[in-house]
Amino acid sequence: MEKGEKIEVLATGLPASPGAAVGQIVFTAEEAVKQHNSGAYKSVILVRGETTPEDIAGMEVADGILTSRGGMTSHAAVVTRGMGKCCVAGAGDCVVDEANKELRVKGKTFKQGDYISLDGTTGRVIAGRLKTLDAQPNDPDLVKFMSWVDPVRRLHVRANADIPRDAKNAIAFGAEGIGLCRTEHMFFAEDRIEHMRTMILADNEKDRRAALKKLLPMQRADFVGLFKAMGSLPVTIRTIDPPLHEFLPKREDLLVEIQHLEDTKPRSPKLKELRPLLARVEELHEQNPMLGLRGCRLGITFPEITEMQARAIVEAAVAVKAKGGNPHPEIMIPLIGSIEEMRNQAAIVRRVADEVFAEKKTKVDYMVGTMIELPRAALTADQIAEEAEFFSFGTNDLTQTTYGISRDDINNFLPAYLKLGIFKHDPFSTLDQAGVGQLVKMAVAKGRNTRAKLKVGICGEHGGDPESVKFCHKIDLNYVSCSPFRLLTARLAAAQAALEEKLGVQGSSK
Amino acid sequence: MEKGEKIEVLATGLPASPGAAVGQIVFTAEEAVKQHNSGAYKSVILVRGETTPEDIAGMEVADGILTSRGGMTSHAAVVTRGMGKCCVAGAGDCVVDEANKELRVKGKTFKQGDYISLDGTTGRVIAGRLKTLDAQPNDPDLVKFMSWVDPVRRLHVRANADIPRDAKNAIAFGAEGIGLCRTEHMFFAEDRIEHMRTMILADNEKDRRAALKKLLPMQRADFVGLFKAMGSLPVTIRTIDPPLHEFLPKREDLLVEIQHLEDTKPRSPKLKELRPLLARVEELHEQNPMLGLRGCRLGITFPEITEMQARAIVEAAVAVKAKGGNPHPEIMIPLIGSIEEMRNQAAIVRRVADEVFAEKKTKVDYMVGTMIELPRAALTADQIAEEAEFFSFGTNDLTQTTYGISRDDINNFLPAYLKLGIFKHDPFSTLDQAGVGQLVKMAVAKGRNTRAKLKVGICGEHGGDPESVKFCHKIDLNYVSCSPFRLLTARLAAAQAALEEKLGVQGSSK
Repeated sequence: MEKGEKIEVLATGLPASPGAAVGQIVFTAEEAVKQHNSGAYKSVILVRGETTPEDIAGMEVADGILTSRGGMTSHAAVVTRGMGKCCVAGAGDCVVDEANKELRVKGKTFKQGDYISLDGTTGRVIAGRLKTLDAQPNDPDLVKFMSWVDPVRRLHVRANADIPRDAKNAIAFGAEGIGLCRTEHMFFAEDRIEHMRTMILADNEKDRRAALKKLLPMQRADFVGLFKAMGSLPVTIRTIDPPLHEFLPKREDLLVEIQHLEDTKPRSPKLKELRPLLARVEELHEQNPMLGLRGCRLGITFPEITEMQARAIVEAAVAVKAKGGNPHPEIMIPLIGSIEEMRNQAAIVRRVADEVFAEKKTKVDYMVGTMIELPRAALTADQIAEEAEFFSFGTNDLTQTTYGISRDDINNFLPAYLKLGIFKHDPFSTLDQAGVGQLVKMAVAKGRNTRAKLKVGICGEHGGDPESVKFCHKIDLNYVSCSPFRLLTARLAAAQAALEEKLGVQGSSK
Repeated sequence: MEKGEKIEVLATGLPASPGAAVGQIVFTAEEAVKQHNSGAYKSVILVRGETTPEDIAGMEVADGILTSRGGMTSHAAVVTRGMGKCCVAGAGDCVVDEANKELRVKGKTFKQGDYISLDGTTGRVIAGRLKTLDAQPNDPDLVKFMSWVDPVRRLHVRANADIPRDAKNAIAFGAEGIGLCRTEHMFFAEDRIEHMRTMILADNEKDRRAALKKLLPMQRADFVGLFKAMGSLPVTIRTIDPPLHEFLPKREDLLVEIQHLEDTKPRSPKLKELRPLLARVEELHEQNPMLGLRGCRLGITFPEITEMQARAIVEAAVAVKAKGGNPHPEIMIPLIGSIEEMRNQAAIVRRVADEVFAEKKTKVDYMVGTMIELPRAALTADQIAEEAEFFSFGTNDLTQTTYGISRDDINNFLPAYLKLGIFKHDPFSTLDQAGVGQLVKMAVAKGRNTRAKLKVGICGEHGGDPESVKFCHKIDLNYVSCSPFRLLTARLAAAQAALEEKLGVQGSSK
């Protein structure tokens, strides 16, 4: 905002994703898309209790996101940071009445179309329209400054980027590669979710393979775009990670809809459609989905999914190479807990790659590695490194399991913990060096004991947090990976860490 | 069953809790209580898709439990093992149609009142009424045999027991103390759940304290019973552990019931009651309750709960001592992940104990310790031992977080994992020595480094598994604790471990 401008702060939430946004509010993703596409609103701010993967299309077109629930690693926070889009999350004083399409805060009521402003750097929700300035990665002073910073650092920096547009942003902010491409984000796109659902609802391998076959060319095209954008820089692509029920309608919505139809339209043909859908959703329902059938467990239970993704990646790399490119895919298997799992998935990837190379009569360089995001992976990293050619620490999940705290649920007790001094900060924002960091250090040592030149990075949210970046420097990681818009911070912190080491400055230890 | 008897096996599920049961089937906990209390059925078998804490009263009166879903550590399995009651869990071939009160299996339909037999040792579900024999802990041959076994072992054995009746069983099977009393099981009793709900629904500390005050004398009476049953043997009592929503009706049931009332009786006064209840249930709803607001996080957020429980325990001990007893309570704080949490809860317990001692002008010996059930607790055990006077490994939870696998959801991929040889066995049945065991060993070493004489035990399900008991011997734990009915196995395995060590036999390492 401009200096001296008078503002009315309505509420302060979490500074979930930096930047500023000014626009007209909407309460559903559909409405965001509608108002954006029609041009009715020049700038849309999506206001939700919390966002879910189904809101992606609305988040894409919004200039800013405001949620009343959720923490620094809630869906809204993580996705917007990836998009480089302003987000204020968990603004508890805001009552988001989605049914009546009202935002009530500080005795005021805002309706669809009303203006608000968000400050993602401080978490402030502000009444009315403030003036803003665009971020300028090409600002000459900034470019000059970073030209002093970069030669000093030892740590490389990569970006978390899921689609070609993010990759271009990453390059603009100085990324030396992609550290995390989350392939499942591609499956939520409008033209794909249908095939994804068909795949999930299939009760046999043949039907699953038929649906996967339709997804293959789409995934391949995405990867072609990524490889083109990144040139010869490494691109780490993670195979599918989230539990499958995330791609289906919500269980409780189905239960209520079915009850309502039974009460009011018991002969509705929709019931015949919804009941089997609910049955499958019930089958996939889990008490603790974060600890359930996800990550490599999906690729092991349904190997045809890993096969399709490996094929899409390798075919894309071959295609880009054929046009004179020099792609470097690094295929990353998530949620590995044991050497046996790693061996199973690596074997599939390598077999499929060999098949593609034989078909296309060419080869590309690629690696197969894993995320280290479970304590057991860190504890047995010496074994896992026998199969994994690189490690990337998924410190969001590693923090979840090391502490036994779900990042989606931490807000129920985080305020009390911070107030009592039990936590000095949210462990999902700044890496817990004493606990999670101990496992990270252990895994680096064990991994390099087996494979001396093991490339090791970090791709959790901590990769963009200065304290955590300095820790990564100290324990000799090769790179940190973070959202494109946090790259400047990461580059600076990496340089500071190198200087502090050189000058013998003692960093803080948590 | 008797030798030579011809039997028809209907299905084979998991041998979730050993023993045999023969009786008439019912499909709800209420019906179990009704048929049992009226004397209509001499022996009741409760048949459910899966059991929940709300089924406890029915499980108490049933002679056996059959479920079609759930694994070796599902609710049905864990609770029945504690009760020493036969259970076959996850018998997937059985269709339990709770709506129509029918059990359909192998082309046959069984209705309420029909007889079936369960073999909890093999997991068999058998048609009709088999003849059974009671377990005989006092069988002279057995007593003689165990008199050879016990002098050999170094490991002590304790039992997991929640109520005085369990404690008496524990003594009969040779327990040298109680290793785990789960206080929350007491809250599900009919006369208490109401106060528990009032406490949870309260939106301020004063109302919470009023409800807790009503629970205090009930808890105290339970502990008096336990201390009396156990004489001068140690009794480890864990403060409240599960997430609070477990004490409330299920969210999806409320959603559906409200929708139905809105559709059919929109003026029903019940709606006025259900809507605020749903609102509180929504507030407490968590994505991953196992990683949410539970364990010490409850006692830290609502210190009045820990205060009430500490008071109930210490007052009970003082009362039993006043009548000539010699109780040894060990108060155990669950889900500790950091020294700061331990310090917070230990301070409350010690303050309340001092208050009670001052009021009653007497003292009893007691200890305050913790469960080690999170990787971070193991990693920082040296710090935690500054405050904790004993450790007890909660290896169910520690396995969950180390592997990142929910015990409630593992069945979605466990069959594939076993078939592919990725797992050699269910890690919730036999301790994973390479991963979870590594953390246990680390915590023992770190803990005893701080507090040389630290008493260390294990109270997870692994305490009754022979392989795991031998591991506990090898790493020099003081005791294992398991369900009363697994004590014979534990005693024997502990003696075998001692002999193998003496004779230099190499045990298997997983």
